[in-house]
Amino acid sequence: MCQLLGMNCNVPTDICFSFKGFRRRGGETDEHRDGWGIGFFEDKGCRLFLDYLPSAMSPIAELVQRYPIKSRNVIAHIRKATQGRLTLANTHPFQRELWGEYWLFAHNGNLSGVEASYSHYRPVGETDSEAAFCWLLNQLRQRFEHKPPAAVLVHEIQQLFAQLAALGSFNCLLSNGEMLLAHCATHLYYVVRQAPFTHAHLIGDDVSVDFNQLTFPSDRAAIIATQPLTDNESWIKCEPGEFLLFIDGMRCAPGSLSA
Amino acid sequence: MCQLLGMNCNVPTDICFSFKGFRRRGGETDEHRDGWGIGFFEDKGCRLFLDYLPSAMSPIAELVQRYPIKSRNVIAHIRKATQGRLTLANTHPFQRELWGEYWLFAHNGNLSGVEASYSHYRPVGETDSEAAFCWLLNQLRQRFEHKPPAAVLVHEIQQLFAQLAALGSFNCLLSNGEMLLAHCATHLYYVVRQAPFTHAHLIGDDVSVDFNQLTFPSDRAAIIATQPLTDNESWIKCEPGEFLLFIDGMRCAPGSLSA
Repeated sequence: MCQLLGMNCNVPTDICFSFKGFRRRGGETDEHRDGWGIGFFEDKGCRLFLDYLPSAMSPIAELVQRYPIKSRNVIAHIRKATQGRLTLANTHPFQRELWGEYWLFAHNGNLSGVEASYSHYRPVGETDSEAAFCWLLNQLRQRFEHKPPAAVLVHEIQQLFAQLAALGSFNCLLSNGEMLLAHCATHLYYVVRQAPFTHAHLIGDDVSVDFNQLTFPSDRAAIIATQPLTDNESWIKCEPGEFLLFIDGMRCAPGSLSA
Repeated sequence: MCQLLGMNCNVPTDICFSFKGFRRRGGETDEHRDGWGIGFFEDKGCRLFLDYLPSAMSPIAELVQRYPIKSRNVIAHIRKATQGRLTLANTHPFQRELWGEYWLFAHNGNLSGVEASYSHYRPVGETDSEAAFCWLLNQLRQRFEHKPPAAVLVHEIQQLFAQLAALGSFNCLLSNGEMLLAHCATHLYYVVRQAPFTHAHLIGDDVSVDFNQLTFPSDRAAIIATQPLTDNESWIKCEPGEFLLFIDGMRCAPGSLSA
């Protein structure tokens, strides 16, 4: 299986510290050697770095770890291939444009029987994951010619996630640059970093960071990952079947959005 | 105005040498300081590096110059903004998926009055260029539910390029990873590197490369650029209104394709 990492913040924040621990799981501290990718939303723009080298050895991952790209929504993935060859076209996250916005998606798990009703979006590679992403966007596009209000959109995505989850194991992260949506099937944890900030220490690495030195009191960031990245923060374990919505660095109840 | 760089090859080839000269025009030897981008097709996959820093100073450009990514089709762009703010969303090349293939597009020039009939594809940013790309893909998608034979597709794109060229200045590069298509309005040059290979020397830089040391006799690469990059190769100047098609590192007559 693969590993997911997501970040959702109320101000543009770099992910260098968390990514440092995460990338080592791609071929160094863990077995996910089959490529990796990370996508950053910056305003309405999006940039995606992909490589089929293990993230622990990839020169692109080295750059990403050291180059502090400030973003409010990030999705990263390290791959242990189960479906689809080891090619760039099969490397997560996947990106498409919907309603004049970029969308990013990454998936951990195995799905079978994703319906191939490709009215607008079609997969380029061979993975169940990209097929699921295209199916989801096609469903949204068929229901809504233009972007609906947030409450309607989130409710719809929650239903579509549930349909995909019925096809196998579906841990995923999805973002349009405004919000980060997730579904837990087996393993997913999150932590919200906010004032009062503390030190954080990476698991299995002699690296700490004092967020007091790097933040303003009003900053807030949610980090979502397949496994906790630090050993001294309060990571919250998600339940199988749980749907998660993060806006402005905070977990939100889908029902709290105004329609 | 901006600068374009494209490469089309018969075998996966790195663009490090040409990119070295090209990136210096972004803020060092020339004035195109408003961001840059480069997209590489690898098999059916595509990876796009974007930055709003001048390419001469960008750490991502530094990585691209030194990391030999092998590709058969590359499109790069350095920007001098004329329409749209200096943001990532306005940075070329632009990428979309059509018929299960990724497409990349970059443009140099100014267009006015691009028709906003966004049936499938909608712009994320504010540039005339992205609007033109979306218009072109929408036209193709409306005409062809599935990818047509190459001759039909190329003929159609040639017609659509001509329509866009009527709206202003339209130098562009377009690729789906199989072929590279270009339109010249004002400035576009190309050179085909093939056996017998020679030394090439970058303009304004003390850098040469001996392609004999790096190639097999059967290798062939076409380089397309707004201005010649080397001072000892036979760059061919394109005419205003000229349509160009490159396949397997060779310029092809559109009529030579089988339908």
